[in-house]
Amino acid sequence: MRAELVMVGTELLLGEVLDTNSQWLASKLAEIGVHLYFKSTVGDNPDRLALVLTQALERSDAVIISGGLGPTDDDVTRRVVASVVNRPLVYSEEAERHVRQYFQHTERPMPERVLRQAWLPEGTTPIPNPRGTALGIWLETEGKLLVALPGVPSELKAMAEEYVLPRLVGREGARITHSRVLHFCGIGESSLEELVDDLIREQSNPTIAPYASLGEARLRLTAHAGSISEAQAKIEPLEREIRRRAGHLLYGADGCTLEQAVGDLLVAQDATLATVESCTGGLLAHRLTNVPGSSRYMLQGWVTYSNESKMTEVGVPRELIDRHGAVSAEVAEAMALGACRCAGSTYALSTTGIAGPGGGTDKKPVGLVYIALAGPDKSVEVVKCNFPGNRLDFKTRATTAALNLLRLRLLQK
Amino acid sequence: MRAELVMVGTELLLGEVLDTNSQWLASKLAEIGVHLYFKSTVGDNPDRLALVLTQALERSDAVIISGGLGPTDDDVTRRVVASVVNRPLVYSEEAERHVRQYFQHTERPMPERVLRQAWLPEGTTPIPNPRGTALGIWLETEGKLLVALPGVPSELKAMAEEYVLPRLVGREGARITHSRVLHFCGIGESSLEELVDDLIREQSNPTIAPYASLGEARLRLTAHAGSISEAQAKIEPLEREIRRRAGHLLYGADGCTLEQAVGDLLVAQDATLATVESCTGGLLAHRLTNVPGSSRYMLQGWVTYSNESKMTEVGVPRELIDRHGAVSAEVAEAMALGACRCAGSTYALSTTGIAGPGGGTDKKPVGLVYIALAGPDKSVEVVKCNFPGNRLDFKTRATTAALNLLRLRLLQK
Repeated sequence: MRAELVMVGTELLLGEVLDTNSQWLASKLAEIGVHLYFKSTVGDNPDRLALVLTQALERSDAVIISGGLGPTDDDVTRRVVASVVNRPLVYSEEAERHVRQYFQHTERPMPERVLRQAWLPEGTTPIPNPRGTALGIWLETEGKLLVALPGVPSELKAMAEEYVLPRLVGREGARITHSRVLHFCGIGESSLEELVDDLIREQSNPTIAPYASLGEARLRLTAHAGSISEAQAKIEPLEREIRRRAGHLLYGADGCTLEQAVGDLLVAQDATLATVESCTGGLLAHRLTNVPGSSRYMLQGWVTYSNESKMTEVGVPRELIDRHGAVSAEVAEAMALGACRCAGSTYALSTTGIAGPGGGTDKKPVGLVYIALAGPDKSVEVVKCNFPGNRLDFKTRATTAALNLLRLRLLQK
Repeated sequence: MRAELVMVGTELLLGEVLDTNSQWLASKLAEIGVHLYFKSTVGDNPDRLALVLTQALERSDAVIISGGLGPTDDDVTRRVVASVVNRPLVYSEEAERHVRQYFQHTERPMPERVLRQAWLPEGTTPIPNPRGTALGIWLETEGKLLVALPGVPSELKAMAEEYVLPRLVGREGARITHSRVLHFCGIGESSLEELVDDLIREQSNPTIAPYASLGEARLRLTAHAGSISEAQAKIEPLEREIRRRAGHLLYGADGCTLEQAVGDLLVAQDATLATVESCTGGLLAHRLTNVPGSSRYMLQGWVTYSNESKMTEVGVPRELIDRHGAVSAEVAEAMALGACRCAGSTYALSTTGIAGPGGGTDKKPVGLVYIALAGPDKSVEVVKCNFPGNRLDFKTRATTAALNLLRLRLLQK
């Protein structure tokens, strides 16, 4: 099957929005062996969209459109699709029901114009949208398949994963591409590449590609094969060898996040956690609680932004702050020990540092952070780091370092 | 001038690489008033690239290609361009000199194959590349302009900024495109469009385009003009009218975030804030502390994930939780009042709800959240919301609603 993507939206041609949908769709199509030969991007302009769609339907077996399905005047995809395949727009009761239910659920008044979204090209099988009002379009016409999904990434992904991709797998009997991503923390991209240099040079199927972002690194192992299980069998020995070399630097595979890996270890050890954050301002607790079921181990967190709150909430002695400053190894330790004691948790993580852009000095520059981990028997360890980047990069790197400190501690048990 | 982008690279169609070049080029072209009508992405395949280039030269005045200029076998751009414009490849001494100098400078041995990059279509003006070996192509043919740049982002950007964009400005009557983005909270995309429906219909320059994401909405006002100041003068009266209609629904413009708008109001009123979060798990504090200088008003936060911590940290009475459940208006109120009292802050925000995917019941489904705001004189208000989406969407929407509740309260002062 030869597929083609058509991304609709003037904002894409003005460069105001980075198109991440098409990369995501492309990688998913590659996984199931659907060959993507072209991708076109066009504005919210009916004539030019019609031109692109007509050509796409001529040269490809399947055309997947993203965007232009909303309720506003510049959402042109529904009527252009109808005109290109030469069918009328018909009113879908099913789509109307969906829109009304969506507004009932959110308990907001429904503007009449959202019902525009119930007009779909004749012959359309509406694609359910669990996250928004716009239903997608699944339309088979003259041996070609035309699919349209909303441009909102969370809606597009949910609809593609739950509806479109499974149905495309069924149509295709081809060679598939299967990837497995291994996640590492505590090693840079270059060192990781060195670790597997010989494997990269030896291999052509699977291939190995390294990536890095803000304190974490990844290897993507990609195999081409006749089936998923055949691809997995190609990847498995390679993964085993990489795991042998990487040891505890590797924390998980595929969709596993660092906070998920930490959570799994806490659950396995029946341990609980508290956090007390200064410079990371809640991001550490936010990441930990992004994991479904995290209430099993995450007891509570403090964001002790003021010095006062470091004292009142987790009992940091005033003289410690006076003598060493709030950004110091001593205060980080006292915060973690205090959090452990106050929350009655097995472990506690603390952060104190200078997120910037202001507030740095020669001795304590922007990017400096102390991270402490308190554990059973009042044990405590503290690490000092310096992170580059802007405020959000800093918070991300500092929380990653904190999570990894806990992960390594849990692995020693 | 009507321009078109052609992005070359099989890795783009496999979804292995996120294409950031085209967004960057698109925004730069918009700034100098070059209209981008189409963008096509195609793999390292000579036939399909030829097809796309032929069509692009037919329908556009300028075609800008990214990628496929390297020294390897799958770098096909040079020869496909030559064949499409029907000219031979000729060896460029200038290009050879550039490549040799590059390797001398980097003190690395030069593989012979890099000299392939010296073969350029006849009539090409080579575009200097300060960062790499591949020279770009600037070729005028039958009234059309064809430009090719390497796909490496740092090379592409340097060559576009130093060579291509200045020359495009010179060709064009130098009309620029300037946008201003207005941010709204507390109104959906459809209702926002209704609010400015007549303005959208009346206007062609500036244009008005609505967008939405996770509880916030935006209007982009875009003007074409001879200069930035002329464009601003066109946008100004329109913005004034929209602000008049939207009132407090509008919270800021351009790069302003909701948490920044809230922070500005807190600073202006010399007020302080505390947060106590259950279901949002620290995201509210994280967003507030993403604003540089937020330590001026953000005193502290609690993540009271367990019932126990709601009682010990901010004094929620146990019988309140027993009677109404932790997810209730009563507990949300008690959390906010307790946080205000314990932190000694002017205001406090609380959240308690069911982020899912588990934990929902018929009476208290996933997506339910109570948000409370406590203020001076022990005043407290509470709102109940139901949010669709996954765990992270839910947390984002709930924190947006909380921030907006505080913003509206501060505006009433």
